[in-house]
Amino acid sequence: MPDFTDNLKPKDDGSAILKAERDRSPISTEELSRHLFSKNGFLERQQRVLRVLEKEPLFQKKQQLNLARPDRYHLGLARAKALRRFVVREGWDVEDYRMAEYLTDEMSPYHLHFSMFATTIKEQASPEQKAYWWPKVESFEIIGAYAQTELGHGSNVRGLECEARYDPNSKEFILHSPTLTSSKWWNGSMGRTATHAIVMAQLLLPQPNGSYKSFGPQPFIVQIREKVTHEPVDGVVVGDIGPKYGYTSMDNGFMLFDKLRVPHTALLSRYAKVDPETGAFRKEGHPGVVYGSLTNVRANIVMHARLVLARAVTIAIRYTSIRRQFRDRDAADQSGPEMAVLDYPTVQIRLLPLLATAFALHYTGEAMHNLYNNTRNAIEEGNFDSIAELHSTSSGLKSLCTTYAADGIETCRRSMGGHGFGGGSGLIGINNDYLSKPTVEGDNWMITQQVAAYLIKIMTDAVSNPKTKSADATEALFRRYLAERGRRRPAEVLRGPQIDNGAIVDAFQWRAAEMSFRLYDARIVQKKKWNSLLIQLHRLSNVYSQMILVNNFYAALQPSPLSAHAASVMESLFQLYALYTMDTDARTFSTTLSATPSSLDVLPDIILDLMIKIRPHAVKLVDGWAIPDYVLDSALGRYDGRVYEDLFDRAHRQNPLNRTTFNVDWQSEEIVLGSGDAGKNILAKL
Amino acid sequence: MPDFTDNLKPKDDGSAILKAERDRSPISTEELSRHLFSKNGFLERQQRVLRVLEKEPLFQKKQQLNLARPDRYHLGLARAKALRRFVVREGWDVEDYRMAEYLTDEMSPYHLHFSMFATTIKEQASPEQKAYWWPKVESFEIIGAYAQTELGHGSNVRGLECEARYDPNSKEFILHSPTLTSSKWWNGSMGRTATHAIVMAQLLLPQPNGSYKSFGPQPFIVQIREKVTHEPVDGVVVGDIGPKYGYTSMDNGFMLFDKLRVPHTALLSRYAKVDPETGAFRKEGHPGVVYGSLTNVRANIVMHARLVLARAVTIAIRYTSIRRQFRDRDAADQSGPEMAVLDYPTVQIRLLPLLATAFALHYTGEAMHNLYNNTRNAIEEGNFDSIAELHSTSSGLKSLCTTYAADGIETCRRSMGGHGFGGGSGLIGINNDYLSKPTVEGDNWMITQQVAAYLIKIMTDAVSNPKTKSADATEALFRRYLAERGRRRPAEVLRGPQIDNGAIVDAFQWRAAEMSFRLYDARIVQKKKWNSLLIQLHRLSNVYSQMILVNNFYAALQPSPLSAHAASVMESLFQLYALYTMDTDARTFSTTLSATPSSLDVLPDIILDLMIKIRPHAVKLVDGWAIPDYVLDSALGRYDGRVYEDLFDRAHRQNPLNRTTFNVDWQSEEIVLGSGDAGKNILAKL
Repeated sequence: MPDFTDNLKPKDDGSAILKAERDRSPISTEELSRHLFSKNGFLERQQRVLRVLEKEPLFQKKQQLNLARPDRYHLGLARAKALRRFVVREGWDVEDYRMAEYLTDEMSPYHLHFSMFATTIKEQASPEQKAYWWPKVESFEIIGAYAQTELGHGSNVRGLECEARYDPNSKEFILHSPTLTSSKWWNGSMGRTATHAIVMAQLLLPQPNGSYKSFGPQPFIVQIREKVTHEPVDGVVVGDIGPKYGYTSMDNGFMLFDKLRVPHTALLSRYAKVDPETGAFRKEGHPGVVYGSLTNVRANIVMHARLVLARAVTIAIRYTSIRRQFRDRDAADQSGPEMAVLDYPTVQIRLLPLLATAFALHYTGEAMHNLYNNTRNAIEEGNFDSIAELHSTSSGLKSLCTTYAADGIETCRRSMGGHGFGGGSGLIGINNDYLSKPTVEGDNWMITQQVAAYLIKIMTDAVSNPKTKSADATEALFRRYLAERGRRRPAEVLRGPQIDNGAIVDAFQWRAAEMSFRLYDARIVQKKKWNSLLIQLHRLSNVYSQMILVNNFYAALQPSPLSAHAASVMESLFQLYALYTMDTDARTFSTTLSATPSSLDVLPDIILDLMIKIRPHAVKLVDGWAIPDYVLDSALGRYDGRVYEDLFDRAHRQNPLNRTTFNVDWQSEEIVLGSGDAGKNILAKL
Repeated sequence: MPDFTDNLKPKDDGSAILKAERDRSPISTEELSRHLFSKNGFLERQQRVLRVLEKEPLFQKKQQLNLARPDRYHLGLARAKALRRFVVREGWDVEDYRMAEYLTDEMSPYHLHFSMFATTIKEQASPEQKAYWWPKVESFEIIGAYAQTELGHGSNVRGLECEARYDPNSKEFILHSPTLTSSKWWNGSMGRTATHAIVMAQLLLPQPNGSYKSFGPQPFIVQIREKVTHEPVDGVVVGDIGPKYGYTSMDNGFMLFDKLRVPHTALLSRYAKVDPETGAFRKEGHPGVVYGSLTNVRANIVMHARLVLARAVTIAIRYTSIRRQFRDRDAADQSGPEMAVLDYPTVQIRLLPLLATAFALHYTGEAMHNLYNNTRNAIEEGNFDSIAELHSTSSGLKSLCTTYAADGIETCRRSMGGHGFGGGSGLIGINNDYLSKPTVEGDNWMITQQVAAYLIKIMTDAVSNPKTKSADATEALFRRYLAERGRRRPAEVLRGPQIDNGAIVDAFQWRAAEMSFRLYDARIVQKKKWNSLLIQLHRLSNVYSQMILVNNFYAALQPSPLSAHAASVMESLFQLYALYTMDTDARTFSTTLSATPSSLDVLPDIILDLMIKIRPHAVKLVDGWAIPDYVLDSALGRYDGRVYEDLFDRAHRQNPLNRTTFNVDWQSEEIVLGSGDAGKNILAKL
């Protein structure tokens, strides 16, 4: 319905503002994008898959936030099925399909099928099992889930309560859930979708004396729903666990077994074998292989975190460039235009270090992928030496990087004032989904113990054998530290008016080594209780991971493959990430003699200067991440800057609530005016 | 449908665990509750109103997270109307009604009517206007909204674009929205509910030369919807702005005017008058009155923040007491029960300082209320002296306390691992709603400028007149600081093995004074640009507000009215809040000479000790906040500890998604199995 608002324009033209922002920076967005996404034809693929999705009515995102949670699953399933059909129709490969998932930006009800379910069968099934199951998996003839965590146990896998008791007479395993807390819980794709599941259950084998002995959690492949009716098979109670912060499109499930009998072949037996006759257990192979794939998942988490963070920062930088608020109170002319919000240091200090962090994560994500590939090659040649370092590094980075991104989204949102709280921010979905990341794949506080334990071990080795040379970078650092200890000269961040990048790297390395030594001393020398050290162990992991981010960012500048302008801004971003981090935790840099007191005192001023240097390029720098409007789904963050037009359109044209007129008279029980509903419709939904 | 899960129990009995937790602390929950809620019969009222709501099907919360956003407004309106009827039926007074709102725990579509709309008419209408409008307001014959912020302007009220141009010929104001950004935006209760609104518009009056001059934003009362049809009146475009992070039950609205003519009497004219004949403008009265009511709102924000934080902490402490995870790796016996999660220092360090913060907020909220009442009395006697201090203090506290609570909810959620991410946490609603608080009623970064400006002014006065005595506590502190400057001896937090509470207070006061002096020096002496100092001004505000929290908490212990056990734990909570804060920002305590380096070095150990002291009382301490299960709406935080039973019930019995069986075959377009829907149902909703 047309009305007088159709002809209204916003006071300031957002498109013109963003154009001016782009015009004043000589950086090439194109060059930056190629630099960030050089691999696998990412940018071309993004364009190609995007063109397919944008045409599909089912993939329109406009009404997503208005849907009830059950409808969000309906939509998620409809899209999952459609994507699978597009694979056939468009001839997509696996990378195209992954790209479609990224662009759709929701957790698909099929997701666990082609991730954990497929991977587990590929890695843990015996050749015969794989021959039987893989064709069904590949063709999506069956849909699988991965049922490990339980209502009562998550991180502590050894504590799982679900049982698989072997009956040598019938040659069957009896899956059973003895308690409520033994219910499988949180398992994605299981609540409504999956026909099959990998079930991790305590393997119980009969002993000569008639008792049963546990051989720890082992994987079983189990059909959980009937083929035609899709109802649970007898002996299985399974369902969706209900609403969550995020992942509304996903059916995270629960499942219990009432003495369900499954054949001997249900146990995935590439590494774990039970003799069908005797019930004897046998293990084969090296667990490093499993470690390896976990590490790859974590390297991907770093790369994912960078893109999530870049997305939030893209929205916030574009919007705060356009948004005006107040005049400079020291300006002589108080009648001019208001200031762009991004020109306030209080907004810059929240957004620009996050922008720098996104780049820091990028270079470390790349380094992790290389490390993973090298380790993988070494493993193929039977060399498992570097697994421990890779595993601990990836744990620490998982913890730090997902915390950066989860907190960063909220920081970006708050920087945008009132409109940040609205659906037009485009952050509601990604925020709700991403808040799971600090918890899943190893809780961010818990897994830092692994890093710290590794560092203490390396330090112990270095102390006892100070002369041995090692290829391990951390060990080399620790030996250098031990040699210099006692005659340390703290790093001086400024050399004259210049920032000394090498000194920055040195300060981060020294801090990590010194804190490792202190914890080595507390645990190994003073023999303090592990649990009493947990807080410091967590800090050590973060300190070490920050060092890795600084190392890799610095290495990427030696020399930067970018042309002069971009390379210079990239150096400022490196300095901003490092010095902002140093300022935030200045006390540990001071007490560990990592940096001089005068270096630390000038950090706030250096940071202000760096932000002034980076500010003119801010819009171009976020453009470089090449995140399509379709992914942003944000009025505030649109590439073309039409913020207010879009916000208004969402409210006035797209909001279904505005199609209903209400009876607001408190004396009447009717809710929708003229319907005579007497409130019964809404009561029926409660 | 009964099944074998009906007889299952969780491995650990949560009820027994919480009983044991309660048995091992001698603190009286009853005494603590009376201490916290001594005023206005809060606890009795809570019980009485709760009994009414719990019986009402409309007030059941079980399905709220499953509802579509339009349905959440339906429900909100139905409840708003029902509550108004209960006022009549139950003979509720205003406090009872507020209690019902608190317990219902959602923003009511009537909320702005009896808050900002009613208050504005009460405070800004002329006696004649009040006589006309108040009976309609009081009886809810009309429903009002308060339309100030616009699409393009929030904090900067002077920048509002909506115009009210006076036409002396017709003696009417012409309300007009000249741009898209002049659209009213975010205004609660306006989207679908309100019949009337207070509209803040730039008052434009004709000048002798024929031009118009602006007299700033002024309030107009305007009918926006027709009485019978509830459709917008001609010349008004109004609607709901769509989905947001939170406040799903509230219809935040937009509104534009197409040269809408309203009578001369529409201008609320107690303080602002326009001569109907000449169009001349006249102002009356003192703006301090408006300041005063704003300050009361902010004192309430502190009290609200404490209860929100207490609620999140209640859930997290109860759940982490029950939840078991891993064994102590230094324990000799590795077959015993797993450790309660709350026994890990890494969980304690996240939850116990927040618990302490809730109490810190409580005592300062009380102090603010007293300060407000005293100021109010002084104003009545024509004394406006203390308004500036009250206003700046309340701004700083608003910023700090809402940041504490908003961040605290998320910290609590993450401490609870996987289940924290589920709907059973009970935190989704409060989290989404509360995230608005750092932005509304003055953005948390922006309003800190007011505090800092005030402190710089007081320091300037103190420097220029070092001898004058003042009743103002801040001024007295600054004079003491100036007298001692140069011969400062940093505070020693430990006196032997004892914590010196007085030294803690001294350290916080000195830090605030020293940082005020540094900013006085930068701005007044060195004449640095205001905007270049913004980050430090923000920090100063927080430092000053932390001092106020420490001061008030300390004062509440001199002596504590609590009996010995509770008083002793309360002292530990004071120390934990103060020393945790000190440790978090140890560097400023060090560089300002507020505390000795050795004091700062031992903080981590003291904090660990304090947490060990507080831990046995944790459950009793959260019980003391007396937050009913109805408000918590949390499986994890239930008073009776039946965590797993409740989680399972929500998933298995209450989840509507589990009532539908789906067609998961990707080759079929059907979504609900057997329905033949071909995906059309979900497409229609997009």
